[in-house]
Amino acid sequence: MYIGALDIGGTKTIVGIIDQNGSILCKYQFATNTYNWQQHFLSCCTVLRQCIDSIGISCDDLYGIGINMPGMVNSKEGILLKAVYKGWENIDVKSFFRCETGIDHIVIENDVNACAIGELLFGYKDAYKNFIWMTVSTGIGGAVVSEGRLIRGGWNCAGEFGHLKVEYEHPALCPCGQSGCLEAHASGTAITRYTKEAIREDPLFEEAFSFHKQPMDAIGCSVLAKQGNHKAVEIYEKAAIWLGRGISYCVNVLNPEAVIIGGGVASSLDLMTDVIKLTTEKNVHTTLSGFDIKVTRLGYEAALLGAAALVILNSK
Amino acid sequence: MYIGALDIGGTKTIVGIIDQNGSILCKYQFATNTYNWQQHFLSCCTVLRQCIDSIGISCDDLYGIGINMPGMVNSKEGILLKAVYKGWENIDVKSFFRCETGIDHIVIENDVNACAIGELLFGYKDAYKNFIWMTVSTGIGGAVVSEGRLIRGGWNCAGEFGHLKVEYEHPALCPCGQSGCLEAHASGTAITRYTKEAIREDPLFEEAFSFHKQPMDAIGCSVLAKQGNHKAVEIYEKAAIWLGRGISYCVNVLNPEAVIIGGGVASSLDLMTDVIKLTTEKNVHTTLSGFDIKVTRLGYEAALLGAAALVILNSK
Repeated sequence: MYIGALDIGGTKTIVGIIDQNGSILCKYQFATNTYNWQQHFLSCCTVLRQCIDSIGISCDDLYGIGINMPGMVNSKEGILLKAVYKGWENIDVKSFFRCETGIDHIVIENDVNACAIGELLFGYKDAYKNFIWMTVSTGIGGAVVSEGRLIRGGWNCAGEFGHLKVEYEHPALCPCGQSGCLEAHASGTAITRYTKEAIREDPLFEEAFSFHKQPMDAIGCSVLAKQGNHKAVEIYEKAAIWLGRGISYCVNVLNPEAVIIGGGVASSLDLMTDVIKLTTEKNVHTTLSGFDIKVTRLGYEAALLGAAALVILNSK
Repeated sequence: MYIGALDIGGTKTIVGIIDQNGSILCKYQFATNTYNWQQHFLSCCTVLRQCIDSIGISCDDLYGIGINMPGMVNSKEGILLKAVYKGWENIDVKSFFRCETGIDHIVIENDVNACAIGELLFGYKDAYKNFIWMTVSTGIGGAVVSEGRLIRGGWNCAGEFGHLKVEYEHPALCPCGQSGCLEAHASGTAITRYTKEAIREDPLFEEAFSFHKQPMDAIGCSVLAKQGNHKAVEIYEKAAIWLGRGISYCVNVLNPEAVIIGGGVASSLDLMTDVIKLTTEKNVHTTLSGFDIKVTRLGYEAALLGAAALVILNSK
């Protein structure tokens, strides 16, 4: 089975062909044209055709196309309600791609929801049927899976973990306009902010970055932390406390078997796991404390694999 | 259709017969014998037979029996895993009642989950398919309904809203052993504590209770608040802030269409709704703020009606 997968992200788009086992047969990455959705969708179709050609199949061989996007999606109708970029509102994505490709089976979904579905089909599979998926990257997004089904909420917006309030005493401003949100205290952006603050206060810390030729951001900080730099370790542990608080809320509400973390910061999860566990143990009801904290098994391609998984799940 | 309903609570048990429309045809209330579950279950069977006799039907006319209890329940197997009272552990409730009554269709469930199912079938019905149910009483419990289905979690413990951490600066000790829980700051018990504290600090407040012949607890305080006593109003508004925080977490995670509140404190919800709304507006992502806050339509009988609703829902 060949599935077309489109992961339309904030800055980049990946188009690929994936088989029923979650193997990526080909993929191509290019910049997202956020200024003109029609033009960008047409580019996606062109790239998809190139992918089809490159593996020697025809368009008719595609079982379906899964498309995910960062925003509010009405997946039943196949409509993008609102994306994070200006002008991307109320777009009938399903009809557009049906018309352009001639393929009938098209599924669209919010990108983090797609990651969770990808995890269910191609990642931890049967290990967890009740879990939350958390993307910790520039921002923080989430998805909820219960008994193997996506929980969408009243208007398809469940999983706003990034806006759980975790810090009431010294709340930082969040891009959403509120303060004290998990995203403002534990995202990659927040970790970069902590790093820059620490560098301003401590010339020795700045020297460590220069010496190890690391960028003065969350990634550079994680490299230093993995080498045992105490200040860098402290920064990740600080973020872990806030992540632990946010995760605790989710656990008390949902009793998940696992919290699965993806996004750029997931590669530094080992720096945070102990503190997250300690924090959640203090903050979740004792009956709920047996859940696992795991890095996604889908790696960098979680959203692309998720797009393909949507097509399989929606055909059952 | 006649349904047997058993609501086995912490101090009292209600046994009744309910029809398919949620009308209570008869009911009988008695103390829960927490010291001996076998004896208590036998008493329940005796009372159920009396109920059957009193409305002039026979045991064979019962379509099924719904039983709810305050604790962890494996509803698939019909087993009470752990109740709040000593010695009530790993009890095969379904087999016991099948054997004693000869009725095959027996459903058991956690009491707050049962309330939510009752609301779905007999309360707000089709108005909400995605909602959370919150019992605010001596303690605080919760249940989650998504697309008309109960969300149970990994080990049947979803909905521990009472143990969401809402107060980090001056956290009060919770009966669960942790501190800062919603239950420790917004339950009926907490409101009684605030009332007693305020009485100790202010002789005029104490006089108001004496003058109006009200008990110096959450109920008395609500009577005074409804009469416009400023201190009493402040106490309910204080509890409302914490409720608002707890509700905000649930809303960010689940995007419910409504938060439905039952339990003793629900009758004072009008004293708290404005502050809850203000608090949630500050704390939930803007896309999620359109949810309703409602008092249960099932009143005092929410759990009993829930027990009957379980039987109907599980027969579909």
